[in-house]
Parts: sequence; C-alpha cells; structure tokens
Amino acid sequence: MAGGGRVKVGIIGSQFEAEIHAESFRILPDEAEVVAVASPTPGNAERLAKRYGIPRVFTDYRRMLAERDIEMITIAAPNHLHARMTIEAAEAGKHVVCEKPLCMTLEEADEMIETCRRRGVLLLYAEELYFTPKYVKAKRMADEGAFGKVYLVKQCEKHFGPHASWFWDVDRSGGGVFMDMGCHGIAFCYWFLGRPKVKSVLCHMGTYVHGDKTRGEDDSIAIIEFENGAKGVVEDSWARRGGMEDRIEVYGEGGVTYADLHMGNALPTYSEYGYGYAVEKAPTTKGWTWPVFEELWNYGFPQEMHHFARCVRGKETPLVTGEDGRVVQEVLYAGYRSAGIGARVDLPFRPAGVRKPIDLWFAAREGRA
Amino acid sequence: MAGGGRVKVGIIGSQFEAEIHAESFRILPDEAEVVAVASPTPGNAERLAKRYGIPRVFTDYRRMLAERDIEMITIAAPNHLHARMTIEAAEAGKHVVCEKPLCMTLEEADEMIETCRRRGVLLLYAEELYFTPKYVKAKRMADEGAFGKVYLVKQCEKHFGPHASWFWDVDRSGGGVFMDMGCHGIAFCYWFLGRPKVKSVLCHMGTYVHGDKTRGEDDSIAIIEFENGAKGVVEDSWARRGGMEDRIEVYGEGGVTYADLHMGNALPTYSEYGYGYAVEKAPTTKGWTWPVFEELWNYGFPQEMHHFARCVRGKETPLVTGEDGRVVQEVLYAGYRSAGIGARVDLPFRPAGVRKPIDLWFAAREGRA
Amino acid sequence: MAGGGRVKVGIIGSQFEAEIHAESFRILPDEAEVVAVASPTPGNAERLAKRYGIPRVFTDYRRMLAERDIEMITIAAPNHLHARMTIEAAEAGKHVVCEKPLCMTLEEADEMIETCRRRGVLLLYAEELYFTPKYVKAKRMADEGAFGKVYLVKQCEKHFGPHASWFWDVDRSGGGVFMDMGCHGIAFCYWFLGRPKVKSVLCHMGTYVHGDKTRGEDDSIAIIEFENGAKGVVEDSWARRGGMEDRIEVYGEGGVTYADLHMGNALPTYSEYGYGYAVEKAPTTKGWTWPVFEELWNYGFPQEMHHFARCVRGKETPLVTGEDGRVVQEVLYAGYRSAGIGARVDLPFRPAGVRKPIDLWFAAREGRA
Amino acid sequence: MAGGGRVKVGIIGSQFEAEIHAESFRILPDEAEVVAVASPTPGNAERLAKRYGIPRVFTDYRRMLAERDIEMITIAAPNHLHARMTIEAAEAGKHVVCEKPLCMTLEEADEMIETCRRRGVLLLYAEELYFTPKYVKAKRMADEGAFGKVYLVKQCEKHFGPHASWFWDVDRSGGGVFMDMGCHGIAFCYWFLGRPKVKSVLCHMGTYVHGDKTRGEDDSIAIIEFENGAKGVVEDSWARRGGMEDRIEVYGEGGVTYADLHMGNALPTYSEYGYGYAVEKAPTTKGWTWPVFEELWNYGFPQEMHHFARCVRGKETPLVTGEDGRVVQEVLYAGYRSAGIGARVDLPFRPAGVRKPIDLWFAAREGRA
Repeated sequence: MAGGGRVKVGIIGSQFEAEIHAESFRILPDEAEVVAVASPTPGNAERLAKRYGIPRVFTDYRRMLAERDIEMITIAAPNHLHARMTIEAAEAGKHVVCEKPLCMTLEEADEMIETCRRRGVLLLYAEELYFTPKYVKAKRMADEGAFGKVYLVKQCEKHFGPHASWFWDVDRSGGGVFMDMGCHGIAFCYWFLGRPKVKSVLCHMGTYVHGDKTRGEDDSIAIIEFENGAKGVVEDSWARRGGMEDRIEVYGEGGVTYADLHMGNALPTYSEYGYGYAVEKAPTTKGWTWPVFEELWNYGFPQEMHHFARCVRGKETPLVTGEDGRVVQEVLYAGYRSAGIGARVDLPFRPAGVRKPIDLWFAAREGRA
Repeated sequence: MAGGGRVKVGIIGSQFEAEIHAESFRILPDEAEVVAVASPTPGNAERLAKRYGIPRVFTDYRRMLAERDIEMITIAAPNHLHARMTIEAAEAGKHVVCEKPLCMTLEEADEMIETCRRRGVLLLYAEELYFTPKYVKAKRMADEGAFGKVYLVKQCEKHFGPHASWFWDVDRSGGGVFMDMGCHGIAFCYWFLGRPKVKSVLCHMGTYVHGDKTRGEDDSIAIIEFENGAKGVVEDSWARRGGMEDRIEVYGEGGVTYADLHMGNALPTYSEYGYGYAVEKAPTTKGWTWPVFEELWNYGFPQEMHHFARCVRGKETPLVTGEDGRVVQEVLYAGYRSAGIGARVDLPFRPAGVRKPIDLWFAAREGRA
Repeated sequence: MAGGGRVKVGIIGSQFEAEIHAESFRILPDEAEVVAVASPTPGNAERLAKRYGIPRVFTDYRRMLAERDIEMITIAAPNHLHARMTIEAAEAGKHVVCEKPLCMTLEEADEMIETCRRRGVLLLYAEELYFTPKYVKAKRMADEGAFGKVYLVKQCEKHFGPHASWFWDVDRSGGGVFMDMGCHGIAFCYWFLGRPKVKSVLCHMGTYVHGDKTRGEDDSIAIIEFENGAKGVVEDSWARRGGMEDRIEVYGEGGVTYADLHMGNALPTYSEYGYGYAVEKAPTTKGWTWPVFEELWNYGFPQEMHHFARCVRGKETPLVTGEDGRVVQEVLYAGYRSAGIGARVDLPFRPAGVRKPIDLWFAAREGRA
Repeated sequence: MAGGGRVKVGIIGSQFEAEIHAESFRILPDEAEVVAVASPTPGNAERLAKRYGIPRVFTDYRRMLAERDIEMITIAAPNHLHARMTIEAAEAGKHVVCEKPLCMTLEEADEMIETCRRRGVLLLYAEELYFTPKYVKAKRMADEGAFGKVYLVKQCEKHFGPHASWFWDVDRSGGGVFMDMGCHGIAFCYWFLGRPKVKSVLCHMGTYVHGDKTRGEDDSIAIIEFENGAKGVVEDSWARRGGMEDRIEVYGEGGVTYADLHMGNALPTYSEYGYGYAVEKAPTTKGWTWPVFEELWNYGFPQEMHHFARCVRGKETPLVTGEDGRVVQEVLYAGYRSAGIGARVDLPFRPAGVRKPIDLWFAAREGRA
C-alpha cells in the first residue's frame, strides 16, 4: 500500500452515515480522499458519488475491497453487517473504520479485533464523541484537575427516532435506542473517566411511544459503576420531540460542568417563512427553532476521520479502537440483561450464544433467563 | 377553635426551615399570622421571634401546644421528631404542617395519619414543589395536553450538602440525600403524573464525597415505575459544587418541557466586589454567580403556607397531605432496599420493624437482607 | 374617606390593562378590593366585572367618580385621556393610579401633579418595572455595590405590535413604540441610577414594518446621558416577531448583570398539540415556545398595586409618582425631537404648545423645526 | 511567484494577533504554511517561531519582504503601521492580509488599495466575523429568507480592555474601543445586509472607566443607517467585566435570531481548583466560568486564513478586501465626528487632513469643529 499522499478511502453505505463520512472528508481534505463508494441498492451509491465527486461506484462492496489503491474502508451499514464487512476488509488488507455500535455479539467483536490484528490493519471505532470539540474541552478541564476527583459523568442523547428504517428492525440493529445511542454514552463515560474497568450495569428501558413500529426499546437509562469508584449515567430516547438533544454533565468533588450541543450552542431563532436547515431531525424551520451551525464539526466527525487518516499514515496513534467497541458491547449486553431482570449485572459478563444484545432483555422478561 | 380572622400559627423549630416558614407567612400575611415559636436551645427561638415580631416564645413545644388560640402548628424539626410532634399536636387539636420527609417509618406515617383523622385535624405535608410556580406551569401545560401522554418525568435537586448538622447523622435524619431531597422528587413525579400507583423502584446511591462526615449517601438516582406506564427519574446530590440546582424535565409522546429554578431563572452576574445574597448555598457572591430573585416565592413556600391556612379555614381543599407523605415514605424504603440489593423492588413494600429507611441499604449491603 | 379596611378601587377601562389591574388586585387581595369598573363601550365593563366579581359597573366614569366610598381610581384608558381623567378623579377626591405614559404633554403633567397636590390625593404612576422582581434584584445588587460605579444601564422591550387599535393612532397614543414602551425604559434607567438629572437625549427611530397601519415609529433606540456621568440605552420595537421580549443589562466598572423576563425565565417547551397560554403576544403554543409562569407577578403588577393601596393607607411611601412620569415625559419630548433633527437634545427641554410628543419628530423631519 | 504547493506566508508581528495567525495556519494547514515571522523586539519573533516551528525569523520586516518565495504577508502590527507595511509588501509583490482596522486615514486606505491594485496583489482585510461559523449561519438563514426583510442588525463586542499596551495610546491605535472593536461591528452589519451604501452614522461614546490609562473612549454605541432602509447598531466596550462578550441580533419583519459566541456557546463550569484556560480575557478559571472550546475556530480565524490562501491560489474569490476596510474607515470617521458634535453625520464623509479618526471626536468636543 502506498505510504504517501492522501489516504484513499472507500465508503460502504450511501445513506445518512455514509454522507456524514463523505462530507467529513470534504471538510478536512488534506489527509484523505474518498475514491470509492459501495451500496447494494442501484442508484444510491451513484447519488452520493455525484454529490461528492467520488470517482468509483460499486453495488458490491467486495469488488470495492479488491481495489488495490484503497487503503481505508469506512463502514456505514446496518449493525448486523459490521462484523462481516470488517473482517472481509481486513482480509483484503484495508484499514477499517467501523461505525458504532461495533457489532452484534462479543464473539464478533473478538473476531473483528483478532482479524485486524493478524492482518496488521487498524480497526478504528467511529465514536465521534471522543472528538466532539465541546466535550473534548470538558475532558481537558477534568484532566487539568478542574473538578478534582470526578464521581459522576452523564451523557444523554435524544430525538424522535432514527433516520433509517432498519433501526426499527431489531434483527438488523440488534436493539433499540440503547444499542443505537446508548453505545455513545457508554463509550463516552468510559473514555472520560480514563478507561477504568466497568464493574456493573444497572439499566431500565421501555417501549413507550413507538410500539407500533418496533419491538426495540425507545427510552433507556443506564447506570454504570466503574472500578475507580465513579459512575456513569447514560440516558437515551427515540421518543423526544422537537429535534436532537445531546448533552453531558460532569460532577467532581471540586466542580461541575455542563455541555449541550444543541440548545446550548444554537441560535435561538424565530421565522415566519422557514429557511434551509435547522438541525438533524428538526421537525420544521418555522416558528421558534434551534438551528445549529457547522453541525458535523461540532459533533467532531471531520476531526475524527482526519485523525483516522493520520493514524493510517502513522502520524497519530488511534484514540479509539475496536477494543473500546468491545467494552461498549459488553456493557450493552449487561444493560439489556439488567433491564430484563430488573437488577444490577456485574462484569465480566460474557454469555455465549447471544445472537443480538436485545435478546438478553427479551429472554429475561419472558422468564427464560 | 376560632372560625374567623387569620389563622394563628405556632412554629416548632428556629433554624433554616423555621425561618422559611416565618418568612412565608410574612410574604403572604392575609390568611395567617405566626403567634408563637418553640425551640429547645435557649436563645434560638428568641432570635427568630425578634426578627419576625412573633410575640410568644417557648423552649418546650408542648407548652406551645397548650396555647388555646393556636390553630396550626408547623414542624421544622429534625426528621426523627416529626411523628411524635405531629401526634402530640394533633392530640392537642392543632392542624399540622409537617416538613418533608413525613417521618422515619411507615408505622409512624400510619399513626400520624390516623391520629389526625381521629382528632379531626388536617395533616398537611409540606412539599413545596406542588406550589413552585414554574413547575406548576409545567404541570398545567401537561394537563392541557401539551405533551400528549407523558411517559417520563424527571426531577433533580443538587447542592454541596445540608445546612444543619443533624442531616449528616442518619439516626436523626433517617438517611442521606435520597431521604432529604429524593423525597421531593418522588412526591413531584407522583403528583405530576396524577398520583398513579407506584409499581417499582430501582435505585443507585453512594457516598462519594462526604464519607468523612456521614454514613449517609451523598448522591442518588432513582427510577420509579408507575402503574400508568410512565416512569419518574429522581436525581439528588449533596456533592454538587457551585450552589443550588433544582430542575425538572417532562417528556411526552407529543412534546417536552424543561424548567430550571436556578441557572434557568437567575441573573447571570459578575461582581468584583460581591453583594448581599446570591442563592441558597452559593459559595460566594464574587466572580460569576447565579443570583436568584424572590427565592421563596419561586420555590412556592409562601403560596404553600397560604394554601394551608386557607385549608384550615375551609376555603380550599388540601393539595398535599400525609397520604402523599406516606407514599413517599414507602418509595424511600423501596429505594434504599433497591440500592442495597442492586435490584428493582416492587410495591407494596412494607417491611416491618424498620427503624429508619437507610437501614434497608445498610442491611442489604451487609448481606443481612 | 374611610381610613380602615381594604382600599376600595374603581378601574377606568375594560381592556388589556384594565384586566391586568383587576387580576393584580385578585392576586394580592389583602390591601384593596375592586368595587367598580367604568368603560364607555356597552358590555365591556360588564364582561370584566363578571369575570372578577366586581359589583358596580359604569359606562360613564364620571358617575363612578361620584361614588363616595371609592378611594382610589386606576386609569387604563388611551393616553390622550389620562390627564383629563386624572384631574377629574383628583377633583373628586380620589387617589389616582395612572398607567404609563403619564399623559400627552408637559403642561398636562404639570396640571395633573398640581391638581393632585392641591386636592391632597396621591398621583401614583403605574411603572411596574420598579416592582419587577428580577429587576428589583438587579437594582438591589447594584445598590449593594456589586458593580461598583454603574456607567451603563440598558432596558429593551420588544414585540410585534400593541394589543389595542388606539395605539396605532398617534392622536390617541401620542406616539409609537417609543411613547408606548420607551417610557418604561426611560423610567427604568432613571430609577435604577438613583434619579440623577437627565442631561441629554440622543434618539433614532423609524417605521420599518407597520407603515401601513400607523404614522408612528415601530422601532426606536434612545441614548440618555445623566448628570452623574452614566448613560441609559433604551431599545423598543413593535416589529419583533415571536412574542414578548423584556430585558435589562447593567454595566459597572466592577461588574455586570443581565436579566431577561422571557427567554431567560421561561420553560423551553415543544408541543405538537398546543396548550392554554404561553406568554403575552406569543403567536402560537405549538412547536417550540417560551411559556412564562406567573406572568403578572414576574412583571410586578400585583406588587405594584399592593404597594399603591398601602400608600393610600399611609403604610408605605410612594415609590413612583407623577413626578417620575413628568421626567419621562420630558425625555419623550427630547427623544422625538432628537430623532427628528438627528442630533442630541439637551435638557431642560420644554417647548410650549406641543400637542403630542411625536409631533416633535414629524415637525423636525419636515424641516419646520 | 510559484503557482503550486502551499502558499508561503510571512507574519509581521509576534504578539496576540500574530499568534492567532500562526495558530490558524496550524489548524488548517493544507493551503498555506508560515515560513517566516518578523518582529522588531529581539526575542519576540524567535519565541513565536519556536512555538510554531517557523523556520525564518527577522527583526526587520523589510528583510522578510525581500524573501523571494514568500507569497503572502499577514500584518499583525499596531494600527498606525498598517498602511506603510501594506504598501511596502505590495511593492515587494506580496499579497497582503491586513488586520483590522485597515489603517488610520482614508488617504492611507486609498493608497493601500491603489498600490495593491497596481502591483497586482490582493489586499485581504482580516475581518474574521465574515467567517465566524455561528454568524455565517445567521447570515445564511437571512439570505434564505428566514426573517423576511431585515431592518435591524446588531453586533456587540465587550471586554475589560485590550491585551497590548499600544491600544491605549491613541497615536498608535487611532482611537479607543470604537476603532478597535467597532470596526468589527461596522463591517459585520455592512456585510450582513449585503453591502448597501451607508447613509449616516449617529454615535455616542465616552471614557467611563479607563480614563487613567487612555484618552480614548472605552464604551461606544453607533447607529448606522443604510441606503436599503435598514439600520445597524454597534456596541463596544473596554469596560465590561468578566471576560469576552461577542453577540449579534438580527431582526426582520418575518423573524429574529440571536447568536452569542460566549455565554451562548460555552460550558457553564464551576471549579474550586481552576484549570488551564477559559476564554480570552477571562479574569480567572476558579468559581463559575464560561469556558469556550475551539476558540479560534469559533471566531473563524482558521477558516479566514484558509480562504485567503485559496484566494492567492485563485481557488476562491476574496470575500473581504481593502474596499470593505475603507468603508469601515469612513464610518469610523463619521462615528467619531458624530460623537463629538452629538449629531448624525451623513456619508460620504471624507474630511481631508485627518491624522487619526479619534481626532474628529477630540476636535468637535473642543469646539474646533
């Protein structure tokens, strides 16, 4: 593989997340360029390619993996495909950026990590919260001692439901909002506190609003105990009206900070006539709205992809890898189990034969646990 | 007892809460007047009496209960005294306003309620959140259908520790922050949702910062399931720096609202020189601060006491009574037990022989449960 | 006139402001009671009377003035009627609460003040900002030295146009938004700074949006220099979409504070379905809105009327009188003149023969000045 | 000059602004690289060079101008040197990025523009507000019709005084806060409204707090009328405690928006112990503070410099040039004159022989105007 020039990237996917990837590389273009995109539905990849000037288009991602010059693959496909795609990409000698959550099962996680290790490629876990500028500032202050010993970190993400239909299908997603967005909060607390071991998980969830669309939970709250004595609280919802919410709170014995990516950053705006774009999942641009600015930048996507490209070139050391994703995966298991039995689940927690995390909730509720 | 004129009130206590009572009657004086105050420590009651022009002062509250013209007693004493004082006041034919939490045990709660019933006096439970103007507005919007079916209500109250030393002593307080302030959140969610039966409680707590001062928990989070399918989340801390925090969030399938009594109401202020008063438990008035205005009014204390006096006169029906306090008490029991065993506790939950709620946490942790 | 019991009040008017008066006395009922209301349009006074249980109703306010037991009159009529009504009420021996602005001309102001003085009745100028709890807190901090020497005070009030049609008719209102709401800001800065003499006024105004409805200005900004070296900045608009805005900023050499009665106090709320009431002049209750709570209380109307009643009983000394209104009137004159000539106008500024303040703007623009 | 590769940049200056330039090129490095820095004080340029890895260091900027490969010069020197440096750089064939304000006099502005034109180099005016992401979003919404016809734009910038001593010396700065920061607001309103001709300026200013340090004004407010009927209001202060403030407000007949770069973007934070850095000019990091994140990015400096480098390569057309700076300069003249005479000044306003803008204020106040 070429050791110089910009990293050549191929994207698997053509929807919401794939567009975020393409746009991120466009915003910070100096380290990487998207040269190919693959998506099975005819026309989808073409559309993305056209919008971003991506020269090569594939309906079969395996053919894209055969392209010699492509060095890095980003996976923006449904969760149940992550493992297979990662493994095939690694076998093809490509570095892999895998969207969150890492996969469906711990066995998959192990195999993804092992294959990448064996093939000498990077397994980069796309948790953008590690790059979210406002959250990075909070972490920097914490690391500088602003809050003394931190005993509680909270992250919350809420909106009124996902952008693509496969999220509602737990066989493809592996779970509901806890799987989809709780994975962010789990990763966040773990990282913020300096990657202490997870001791236990206590979780509550339910399907409150979207029971007609999904068997998955649409609202969840998880309390995570770490070995350093701190706790994380992770709140997520697909049942919150009015657009996106993404917030953190940090409590230490010596201080506290709050960061809000939406209401706490936006331009409070009233418009009789509407305008182009307010924010992800905003229901309208008329009346009062909370438009954000530089949305992707303020989540940290371009910085994340830029970092990953630099890792491929050996200029930086990965800040977030498959190992982080595996920790998240175990907490997802424990969380679903905890919600099902109504009790704390201690880690390590590696039940074998799980097909998807949410099954642990289903099984426990049905008394088969 | 006199049926006309302003209700004559006697206050038991002379510290923080007693002053709130006296000040509340001063702010809205048309329905009641404080005519007596009782406090055992010599000088304390005198000081309060002097500041508020209260004519009669007692060191023994029993002597105050003997005053014929006093119609209503307010109890602002440590938690472990609530039951005895309430019962004695009721036996003396006085209406009783009892500060939160209602008492130490469910047996006490039963006896308080029964004695007041038998004696034909009101047992008014001083949960001021039912009168907090901003929260009342949230409830009114909910009741008007603004949010459709509400599936989640949150209340959080945090500061860096209580104002009086007896709170640190669990034998007098009955528990830590969950007992002291969680009782607010429990009562709030219950009321906000229309008093549905409580199904279960899942609770996590710990002593993170003040372990040198207390055996009680200084940070807690409780998840309460109600029979109508909604949940309440109650967060409390004695370990939050920077002054008071009191907030709610309401989520329905059709909307959401947020109310913050401090940062969301205050005057963001910078002062080089400082000034008189910012807010309860604020560490300083220099630098940036969040001063509130009409602090008691914005909590609802004067409105609460005004309402209670009107109830005594039969002009209004009590909005909050000992029965509410008993529901809270049971949830406190369940919460401490849940935190101790790391599992959900279903209601009804009436273990006999409990001496104080926090014992349920201690016992479970020590494996004696 | 009776020296005891609650002060008996008669209201002139039956619209928006009259309702605020009635509601204010209802909220704090211990010092006064509304016993009569007068309004010329048949049915209007009845409606208000019915809503608030006001026993006596008049179509001719002069007949109401003949009622012996009425001690205080509140005037909630169009501006051009203030002087005549005040004088007649004073001649009838009634204390007068006059809504802002005080009147149309300085000659009227003089006569109002002189008549009330001669007849021994109070002329109470209804500037509620002197009672607005949040602003009172800002002033208290300033008076406590929080900001050191204050060199700049700003007040701003904005919405999308007045509630009654007579405001658009400058012959009845005397001017546009600067007259209607600028009078608040002028009074506020003057009071906040401790009533220093006004040195000069520099003003800019225009009719930007509502030129089809009115000859009056719908947006204005005034810079007021005081003899103590401080300045006031007063911004007003009838052309601001999205509901009410009322804010202050205070700058001293030692600090700064901000107070916002709407966005800075409200419950940020999203509703699919709408609800009862958000805030004065809000266009809708659907989508995102900024509902306020205890709206009148947070402006200070009940406290203001309560204070006025106590002044009538000699329990308090008036905090705001016709003299304040006359100072405001002179600044209004100077402001309209300044806007017309595009230059600072120094005080004293008492041109004779002015019929209404806005004429000074018209005249100067037309070169007749 | 080379037409390929990254643009080679030389910075004149080594203090606050020079560091912003160096850091900006570091943040977005793909289009330009800083290869040289010049500063007369021995050691200063070295320090900056060391921190940013800048290979060439000069004490005489003229020697830097002689370097053949340098294509673009950025000027971060006191205002009175801008013209001379720009002209010399242009004569040396370098593109020029000149910090705000453009220069001291309109004659200088003319000569700078003419020299650059004649020599075929770009004169890029470093007004970063045209690149401030949050403000760019406001402008985009306005351009999309969100607010209908915009009739009022406000920009305000305030802190407690400049970072370098030369600002206090009006002979080097040309004026006080209106010159230093008012230039931002003038440029902003002009740009936001689509560069309509300026009709008139009405300005008020004073030296309220820092009279011991400077003859310059430390607080100013300017009202600018544009030919399209809209107005701009520009408020600036060197007398605002508590750190930086930079805000805009936009009012149209169909809507309104607010953007705040500090309180409206920061992480409200309390720290007992302090931490690394809060925000430009913050007095402390202890107690409550308003730390910002990605400070330069959120002002738009890296994006601005990136754009300028692309302009040099012909990839983009300059969004802000010396012509904008000249418009600002004329408004500065008119503003100082207006403040001095207490009256509106109409444009065009090109008095000859002015040595520095603030002289127009001094002269008018002294009656020599």
